[in-house]
Amino acid sequence: MKADCGFDDVEIDAVGNVVGRYKAATENARTLLTGSHYDTVRNGGKYDGRLGIFTPMACVAELAAQGRRLPFDLELVAFAEEEGQRYKATFLASGALVGQFDPTWLEQKDAEGVTMREAMQHAGLCIDDIPKLRRNPADYLGFVEVHIEQGPVLNELNLPLGIVTSINGSVRYLCEVQGMASHAGTTPMDRRRDAAAAVAELVLFVEQRAAKDGDSVGTVGILQVPHGSTNVVPGRCQFTLDLRAPTDAQRDALVADVLAELEAICQRRGVRSSVEEMMRAAAAPSAPEWQGRWERALTDLGVPLFRLPSGAGHDAMKLHEVMPQAMLFVRGLNGGISHNPLESTTSDDMQLAVDAFQRLLDQLAADMA
Amino acid sequence: MKADCGFDDVEIDAVGNVVGRYKAATENARTLLTGSHYDTVRNGGKYDGRLGIFTPMACVAELAAQGRRLPFDLELVAFAEEEGQRYKATFLASGALVGQFDPTWLEQKDAEGVTMREAMQHAGLCIDDIPKLRRNPADYLGFVEVHIEQGPVLNELNLPLGIVTSINGSVRYLCEVQGMASHAGTTPMDRRRDAAAAVAELVLFVEQRAAKDGDSVGTVGILQVPHGSTNVVPGRCQFTLDLRAPTDAQRDALVADVLAELEAICQRRGVRSSVEEMMRAAAAPSAPEWQGRWERALTDLGVPLFRLPSGAGHDAMKLHEVMPQAMLFVRGLNGGISHNPLESTTSDDMQLAVDAFQRLLDQLAADMA
Repeated sequence: MKADCGFDDVEIDAVGNVVGRYKAATENARTLLTGSHYDTVRNGGKYDGRLGIFTPMACVAELAAQGRRLPFDLELVAFAEEEGQRYKATFLASGALVGQFDPTWLEQKDAEGVTMREAMQHAGLCIDDIPKLRRNPADYLGFVEVHIEQGPVLNELNLPLGIVTSINGSVRYLCEVQGMASHAGTTPMDRRRDAAAAVAELVLFVEQRAAKDGDSVGTVGILQVPHGSTNVVPGRCQFTLDLRAPTDAQRDALVADVLAELEAICQRRGVRSSVEEMMRAAAAPSAPEWQGRWERALTDLGVPLFRLPSGAGHDAMKLHEVMPQAMLFVRGLNGGISHNPLESTTSDDMQLAVDAFQRLLDQLAADMA
Repeated sequence: MKADCGFDDVEIDAVGNVVGRYKAATENARTLLTGSHYDTVRNGGKYDGRLGIFTPMACVAELAAQGRRLPFDLELVAFAEEEGQRYKATFLASGALVGQFDPTWLEQKDAEGVTMREAMQHAGLCIDDIPKLRRNPADYLGFVEVHIEQGPVLNELNLPLGIVTSINGSVRYLCEVQGMASHAGTTPMDRRRDAAAAVAELVLFVEQRAAKDGDSVGTVGILQVPHGSTNVVPGRCQFTLDLRAPTDAQRDALVADVLAELEAICQRRGVRSSVEEMMRAAAAPSAPEWQGRWERALTDLGVPLFRLPSGAGHDAMKLHEVMPQAMLFVRGLNGGISHNPLESTTSDDMQLAVDAFQRLLDQLAADMA
C-alpha cells in the first residue's frame, strides 16, 4: 500500500514495524524520521496513532505525484506496538529503534498463554534481527510526530492544531494507608483512625496542588477500602498516584509536596502509609528548533499558535532519547475522548495537519538548500 | 445448665432461644425480662452477648442459693441470633418475641446452600410454633440488658460501667457518584469530572459534621472506584454512608445535612449521584424509669455515673418496641475492641455488673413491696 503511495521501499522490520522510505534527491542524505503507532487499545478509536502514519503518507503521495525529491530522506515508521495491551511492553516498537528491546519480554504470555516469542514467530518476524533495528542518531535530522490530542483542550478553544511543548514527565505510585478498623457505631468521631478519611484528604490535596501549577496533572485513579463494610471504620485504604508535569523539575516538586502532605496527614491522624513507585518517565521537552518548525508551518497556514504539553506518552518519548523531536496535536471532538470508539476529529482538521506537515518539509528543504 | 443454676424451668424455644424462668414468690406475678444473644460473629470475642446472659445467671444462682424469691418473675432469654452472620436476618431471635419473625427468611440459604428452614429443622426446632413466641407486653415490667461496650469510651475514662441513654437511631445508604472517566494525563485539572474527588469531599464533610454533634457518628465504610486504573480519572465511585445519633431527630438532621452536601458537591463539580437507603432503625432511648434504676444501682455501689449512647444495635432495640428498656454497659479493654478475639474485660468489672444487676433486682423488689 505504501509502495502505491509513492514510497521507494517499504518493509516490515523484525519487531513488526512497517517502515517506508522516500529517498532524497541525492545519495547519502540524512534522514527525517516520522511516524506513530498502528496498534491501539481494545475497543479504541480510529485516530490514536494512525493519524501520525496517514498524515506523512498523504504528503509522500503528493510529493511522488509531483515527482519532487527533498534534500533529505523521509523515513516513516508505523510502529507495531505502543499501548502495551497484549503484552506488558509499552513502546516496544519505538524502543527497538533506540536499542531498548528487552529480550525477557519474549517470554511474557498473553491472556491465551501465547508467548510474545511465539506470536512474533507466527507473524513471520525474525526476532534475532531486532538488535539491528537500533538507529544511528548521526544519520538523522530529527523526529516529528502528528497525533490526535486525546484531551479536551483544542476542542474547547476551537483550535484545529496545537504545538506540543513537552511530553510530560510522570511518576506513578501504589500506596496504602493503614489506620485502625473499628466499629462504625461505637467509635466516637474523635477516637477514629480512619484510613479512607486520610486518603480523602490527600485526594483533595492532589487536586488543588496540581491545579496550582496550571499545567501539572495529578490523579488518584485507583481507590478502595479492601473488604470494606458499611458498619466498619476503614482500617486500610489503597490508592494510586499518577503525577505529571511538563518538566522533571516541576513534576518532582509536585511529587515532593504530595508525599509530604501524605506524611503530614498520617502524622495528624495517627495512621501509617506505604508508598511504592511503579513507574517513572522523564519529561521529553520538544527540541526548540523542531517546535519552531511546527510553529512556522502553522503561522504560514494562518492557524493560530497554541502551545500545550502532552499529558499522554507517545513514541516521540523514545526517539527523544537519541534525537531532537517535536510533536503536532490535532483536535479531538467529543471532549477529546480517546481509547474509545467515540474518538473523532474532522476532515478539515486532518487536512490542516497534512498541510502543516507539508510546510514543515518544504521549510526544511528550503533551509537545507 | 440453667436448671443447675437455680432456674425453675429452662427450655429451648421455637427459634432456638434458651429461656430460663425464676419464679416469683406468688403466682401470676408480672415479669422482668432480661437477656442478650449467645451467637456471635465469626472470629468474634467471648463477651459480646454472653455477658448479658451470664450476669443474670449469677444473680439467679445467688437468689436460689439463698432461697430468696422476688415479687416478680425473672425471665432470662439467651437469644439464638442477633448478628445476622449465617443468614441475613439480624435480630431474628429477639424479633420473634415482638412478633417480627419474617417467614420468607426460612428460604434463605447459607454459604453451603442450606436453607434456614433446613438448619432449624435439623436443630429440632418446631418452626410452626414461632408465632406463639410473641410476648404480651401487659405481662412484662420491662427489659434490661447488660452488654460489653464494644467501644473505647469507658476504657479511656477508666470507668467500669456506663449507663446507656439510648441505642442510636441509624440509617445506611448505598451511594454512587457518576462523573466522567477520562485520561489522567491529558485532562487538565479544571476540565475534570472526577467522581472519587467528589466522594473525598463528602467523606471529610461526614467526618466534620458528625463530630460537630459530639455524640453522632458518620462513616464511609465502603469506598471504591469500580475497575479503576492508575491513569484514568475516576468516572464512578461507590460508597456507603452509615449515620447514627442518639435520637431520630438528631440522626435525621445529620442525614439531611450530609445528603444536601452531596447534592451541593455534585452541582459544583458537574457530577451526578444516586443514593439508595438500605437500612433505617429508629433510636431506642432508654425508658427514664429504668435508666434511673441502673443509676441508683451504680450509685449504691459507689460507681461514678457516666451516661453514653450505644452506637451499636442490641436486642433491647427490638424489645423497646413493646416495653420499656434500659441497658448497662461494661468496659471493654484493648480500646474496646469487639468482634475480635482480642475483646476483653476484667473479672472486677464483671463482678460489678453482677452486683449492679442484683441491686436493680433488690430495689425493684423493694419498690413493689
